[in-house]
This record gives sequence, structure tokens and C-alpha cells, in this order.
Amino acid sequence: MEEWKKLLLALGSAAAAGLVSIVLVLRWVLSFREGLGWDGGPAEFNWHPVLTVVGFIFLQGMALVVYRLPWTWGRSKLVMKLIHAGLNLLAFALVVVALVAVFDFHNSANIPNMYSLHSWLGLAAVLLYGLQLVLGIGMFLVPVTPVSWRAAFMPLHVYSGLFIFCSVIAVALMGITEKLIFGLSNPKYKDSPPEAVFVNVLGVILVLFGALILWIVTRPSWKRPSDQLSHILHTRGGGEDSITAGPVLSQLSEESEDIRRRSNRKKTCRCKLKELCNRKTY
Amino acid sequence: MEEWKKLLLALGSAAAAGLVSIVLVLRWVLSFREGLGWDGGPAEFNWHPVLTVVGFIFLQGMALVVYRLPWTWGRSKLVMKLIHAGLNLLAFALVVVALVAVFDFHNSANIPNMYSLHSWLGLAAVLLYGLQLVLGIGMFLVPVTPVSWRAAFMPLHVYSGLFIFCSVIAVALMGITEKLIFGLSNPKYKDSPPEAVFVNVLGVILVLFGALILWIVTRPSWKRPSDQLSHILHTRGGGEDSITAGPVLSQLSEESEDIRRRSNRKKTCRCKLKELCNRKTY
Repeated sequence: MEEWKKLLLALGSAAAAGLVSIVLVLRWVLSFREGLGWDGGPAEFNWHPVLTVVGFIFLQGMALVVYRLPWTWGRSKLVMKLIHAGLNLLAFALVVVALVAVFDFHNSANIPNMYSLHSWLGLAAVLLYGLQLVLGIGMFLVPVTPVSWRAAFMPLHVYSGLFIFCSVIAVALMGITEKLIFGLSNPKYKDSPPEAVFVNVLGVILVLFGALILWIVTRPSWKRPSDQLSHILHTRGGGEDSITAGPVLSQLSEESEDIRRRSNRKKTCRCKLKELCNRKTY
Repeated sequence: MEEWKKLLLALGSAAAAGLVSIVLVLRWVLSFREGLGWDGGPAEFNWHPVLTVVGFIFLQGMALVVYRLPWTWGRSKLVMKLIHAGLNLLAFALVVVALVAVFDFHNSANIPNMYSLHSWLGLAAVLLYGLQLVLGIGMFLVPVTPVSWRAAFMPLHVYSGLFIFCSVIAVALMGITEKLIFGLSNPKYKDSPPEAVFVNVLGVILVLFGALILWIVTRPSWKRPSDQLSHILHTRGGGEDSITAGPVLSQLSEESEDIRRRSNRKKTCRCKLKELCNRKTY
């Protein structure tokens, strides 16, 4: 299969898994649980899983792959950065509401807050996500930030983004575990009633969504061409080059003339690099 | 701070976090729980968290960073591959015992098996880990496997390894959640008795260990120099080059003359590449 078809298939599968997880979480709270409301009771709590899946998982995942959409590669990078930041800001806003919902519910029901590992890691993820947003906007959207700062910060920004995304899915799986144990009494979770199996499947779909997003963002050849051509030049510690010219770049015939020119220049040097790579030890 | 010092600091911190997590899980089962035994009761169950942390998390994590130990870079790659495979095989053996322990305990106590999301994802992780082992040995240790197959399979091997590692930590966090809810009755988990706080801290340390391992393995400049110099040339889909010459490579004065020669050749080409990278859009 051609490389760009693989990319589109992966993007489509990720979007499908994400949308299915949203449908499943909605069906969970609307059909198996108490629905949605804002009364301090279980219906308010139910906003917590819904907004977590929609915001913290789906929207954050979409924000991660926004630079991997081939039909945007001819557009301004600034526009894509604004979309990336916008999706993350929207996700953060939804997560804050999700937190308010669960604190409200706990306080109404006299359940202590912040006792579980789920709550510890969940709050840490929200705080790190907020910090990531502030630093990301300051570094990459404030025009006066020096390019050398951006280059030095980029590896940490990418790593933190993926780490927070993975952590959030792990925290969601812990939340599902908690809710199924506490929420199911007769029959219990261990008796595998339909709700238990249904929500377990939701958990599996969330893992699948995470796996697809991570696969997409870690393929060097699926990067936006401008990022493939000039990736990262660390300014500290002796410098580091990581330069790739991937299959997608060479296959997308509709790419602009500018991108093609840069690709051809890369290929000239790639031949020189291949000469150096004569000692492979897989 | 010099790059090789950062690498050693990260390796030391990861090893420390891993060892602390082993101490904590042992203290959990020996001081707070029923100790260790093989009688079908709770003491047999307790092998499950202990062997999971020791094998599936600590040993697997160590196997992931085995190529990042600078003092081994002068050694044969084959030896390091055997150590990598050996650590993973040992981890797999421990995980199988951990599974037997929990199934034995469930069967003795008439608790159903495989009903929870923790069990679904945990068993999936074990099966994927076994498949990864078989394919990894077949691809990278069987001498007759064509180099082109190895090159084509390597990105999937690396991705799967990291994905399984992350999944195992997530599954462990779910297991901790389950055990604290089921195991604590008076006081309950929500009352935050010392055991609850203690095991929550274990969960946080496991996340820290995972974060450090992932940071180490995803720094291109911390790769084994031979892997930095000739990384991956995909044979399918038009080819992909990902070539890096990192700070560690240029700073490690004790590196062999062979490695230095290759580094110098890289630098010559790196200058050409830097000329091409005149359009940075961070």
C-alpha cells in the first residue's frame, strides 16, 4: 500500500475509534446510568467520564495529529499551530468542567476528594496539561520568543504532550475500574453484567485510540514536510540533527512547487548520507 | 550540563525509581498484607503484584534502555541484543508465574477470572509481549533473517515495545486501584489509611519510572552510536532516512577511534544539511 494511503487509513481509524468511544461513553451514562444533569447527584458526576473522553482524550488526540493531515500541508504553519492550541484549550476547558462535576458530586455525597490513585494522577495530568498549554503558547505563539528557545524547548514539548496523553488514558482506565466496582452492586462487577462488559469494551477502544494516535505521531515520514526538512537543531550540548525525507513527501503529487524543490535538494544530500550508512547492525 | 552526564543522570534516576518501586511493593505485601506463599490464598495472590513490578515493569524497562548504556557501546551489538532478549525472556517467565498466582487465588476463593478491564488489558499485554518476544528473536537473533526484513520490522518492534511497556504500567495502576478497593474494608480506601497512601505512592513511582525510561529511549542523541550513524532505511514505500549525530557521540572522549572516525564523517555532511535547514517553522 502506498504510504499516503497508510497515513489516511491510520488517521481515519483513529478518528473512528475516537468517535466510537464518545458514542459508547454517552450510551453508558444515558442508558446504563442516571443520564446527565447538574444537581450535585450521580447525573452531574456523569459529566466527568463524558467530558474526559470528549475533551481530555478525543480532542487532545486530534490536537496531536493536526500536523499530520496531508490536506493542510500547503497551509500556513501558524494557522495549524493556532488550531493545535485551540483544540487543546477547548479540551482543557472541558476537563475543568469535568473536575468541577466530580468534586460537586463528592461534596454532595460526603465522599472524600483526592484519596485515590486515580485522583492523584488525574489532577497531576490536568496541572501538567495546563503548564504545557501556557509554555506551549508562550514558546510557539508569542512572536518575540527567540527561535533558539523554540528549538531547545521543542523536544520537551513533544515528549510532554505524548506523556500527558498516555497518562490521561491510563487515568481514564483507572476511573472506569473505580466506577464499575463502586457503581455495580447487584449484580456486581465480578458477575459481568451487560454494563460491565460494555464499559470494558469502551476501555479497550480508548487504548486502541491511544495506540493509533501514538503510531501516527511517531512515524517520521508522516510529518508535515516542512518539519521533515528542517526538524530540530538543538543549540545546547553540541547540537543534534534529525532530518528525514519520508515516503509521503515524495508521493504526494499535489504538494506545492516549493515543497518539491526542497525535497529535491534533500534527495541530493540523502545520497551522500546513504554512502555513510554502510555499517548497519540491526 | 554535558550531554553524557544528563544521560547518566537519567539512567541512574530510572534505576533508582525502579528499585524503589520493588522495595515498596515488597513492603506492601510483607508489612501491610499477608506476606508471600503458595497456598492458593492471599499470600499466593501477593506474588502477582510483586512479580509484575519486578518482571513486567522493572526488567522490561531495563531491557528497553540496555542499548543506551555508554559503557557498552564499544562491545558487540550481538551481546547487547542477547542481554536485551534475555532480560525480556526472564521478565516473561516471571509474568507467567504472576498470572498463575492470580488464577490460583481466584479459583480457590471462587472469584471469577477475566471479568475486569484490568484482566482483559493485562492478558492482552502478556500475549502481545509473548508475540513481541517470538518475532523479535526470529527477526533479530536468527542469523539467516534478511537484513531488509530486519530494517522493515524495526519501527514496528520499537513501537510495540514501548506501547506494551506503557500498557503494562497502566494495567498495574488499574490493578492497584482494584486491590485497594477490594482489600481495604475497615478503614476503607476512601478513608486514606496508611496502606492506601503508601500504595498510591508506589503507583506514582511506577509512573515516574515509566516516564524516565520513555525519556531515555526517545532521545535520538542518546542512541548507541552505531544506531545513530545508520538508523533505519525503509525498503518499502519510497524509503525513509532518519540519521542523527548526537551530543553524546561527540562528547564521549573514551569512545573508540572507529566511532570517532565515523562521527567526523557525519559532521562533514551535517554542515551540508544545516545549509538546507534554512526554513525553520517552529
